[in-house]
Amino acid sequence: MTEECPREFIDFAATLADAARPIVSRHFRAPLTIDRKSDDTPVTIADRDAETAMRTLIEERYPQHGIIGEEHGVRAGDAEFVWVLDPIDGTKAFIAGKPMFGTLIALVRGGVPILGVIDQPVLGERWIGATGTDTIFNGKPIRTRACTGIDQAILNTTSPDLFAGDDAVRFARMRKSVWQTQYGGDCYAYGLLASGFLDFVVEADLKPYDFSALIPIVSGAGGAVSDWNGEAIHLASDGRIVAAGNPALLPRAVEILNSP
Amino acid sequence: MTEECPREFIDFAATLADAARPIVSRHFRAPLTIDRKSDDTPVTIADRDAETAMRTLIEERYPQHGIIGEEHGVRAGDAEFVWVLDPIDGTKAFIAGKPMFGTLIALVRGGVPILGVIDQPVLGERWIGATGTDTIFNGKPIRTRACTGIDQAILNTTSPDLFAGDDAVRFARMRKSVWQTQYGGDCYAYGLLASGFLDFVVEADLKPYDFSALIPIVSGAGGAVSDWNGEAIHLASDGRIVAAGNPALLPRAVEILNSP
Repeated sequence: MTEECPREFIDFAATLADAARPIVSRHFRAPLTIDRKSDDTPVTIADRDAETAMRTLIEERYPQHGIIGEEHGVRAGDAEFVWVLDPIDGTKAFIAGKPMFGTLIALVRGGVPILGVIDQPVLGERWIGATGTDTIFNGKPIRTRACTGIDQAILNTTSPDLFAGDDAVRFARMRKSVWQTQYGGDCYAYGLLASGFLDFVVEADLKPYDFSALIPIVSGAGGAVSDWNGEAIHLASDGRIVAAGNPALLPRAVEILNSP
Repeated sequence: MTEECPREFIDFAATLADAARPIVSRHFRAPLTIDRKSDDTPVTIADRDAETAMRTLIEERYPQHGIIGEEHGVRAGDAEFVWVLDPIDGTKAFIAGKPMFGTLIALVRGGVPILGVIDQPVLGERWIGATGTDTIFNGKPIRTRACTGIDQAILNTTSPDLFAGDDAVRFARMRKSVWQTQYGGDCYAYGLLASGFLDFVVEADLKPYDFSALIPIVSGAGGAVSDWNGEAIHLASDGRIVAAGNPALLPRAVEILNSP
């Protein structure tokens, strides 16, 4: 059992989200230069500046902690506590003017996520989850819903293009097993699952800064998350994620993803 | 050239959207019974009540006009003027708590859409387009952007599952021709295209109440819409839609969708 996340870190994570929020909001639907990274994904000054603002605060307050950020790389990645930052998860949605993306902030201890924030700067929505406490959405505790069976479930994934090769076949089995599949959403979909509006999120090819924050949020709301083999998520997980609102249905989802 | 849409109808369409907005908003992220229609798509009391409210207003004000609604069917569908209503376009997104769906209101004359509204009740966002005038977003005229080439374009579609059989192959060609493909959004994506944040929306299997409102909105913002054969959209179109922010790129998109 993971120990309780200290209150001090939870409050500090909210301070980080507060710092990123106006920077990201200012550039939403405003004229913006879109650069292409080496993997051809987009990045903007909003991503870079928001991450810089958060890194500066962490370095001031917790100089001994490590930082892994999507835009500005790793600093002391082998520290006991490591902050894992994605200033804009869903940059594609952000540049298209869609208000469904989020700032992701995680605190990882010994490779295990113990604290996570999803902040939606434009809508003013924030999920905070931490070990040992209930997940909070805009100040109120939330719970996942108890979907009664896979065939009643609403499944979400950001894009079918996440699934290469055999992963596409495995995802298709999951898609055919549920009632309904929805697309788009990035981190926001995990927030909606935690709030009891979606039953599964299944994705692949996620990076540690994409998935670390989501784990405490989903778990703290009564849901469960694992990789596609049913193993707990840690910093070195392979980026294949299955989140279930009803933990009792997670083993069946893992089975479907792995059945021949 | 289609004649100018009378101002009276534009104002009345806004009145209809005003009537639907509180009904839809009230049920967003609230406890809600989700019924399954004969085609296994979801419907709720929010859809039904919002359409009823709009139909009542139309019948009072324009008893000689026809009405086609997603939930309550057709009335005088062969009238000169027909109101085409989708109280919640994107009911799947709505029931999942995603604020990207919309109330669609169109006025069709002789089969041709001359007026369209996309109203996002939760975000308080409204696009209104009509023949002979600029498309308006929350009170201000908007323009599409002039994407310089297909390989620079951001393409959006609500779901890969819209494309059955050969349509999937045709869509895949389009997806491979653009810079980036995004998923989700329903009618909201056409609004974002009109506002200059997306370059193409390509979909199939849409019904008249899904697509009629979108045409004047995209056209009035400087974009262009056709079916996959490059033909203008009318009430009897087959539901395959391609919308382009830059009209100069529409013929190339049609070519890609039709190339062997």
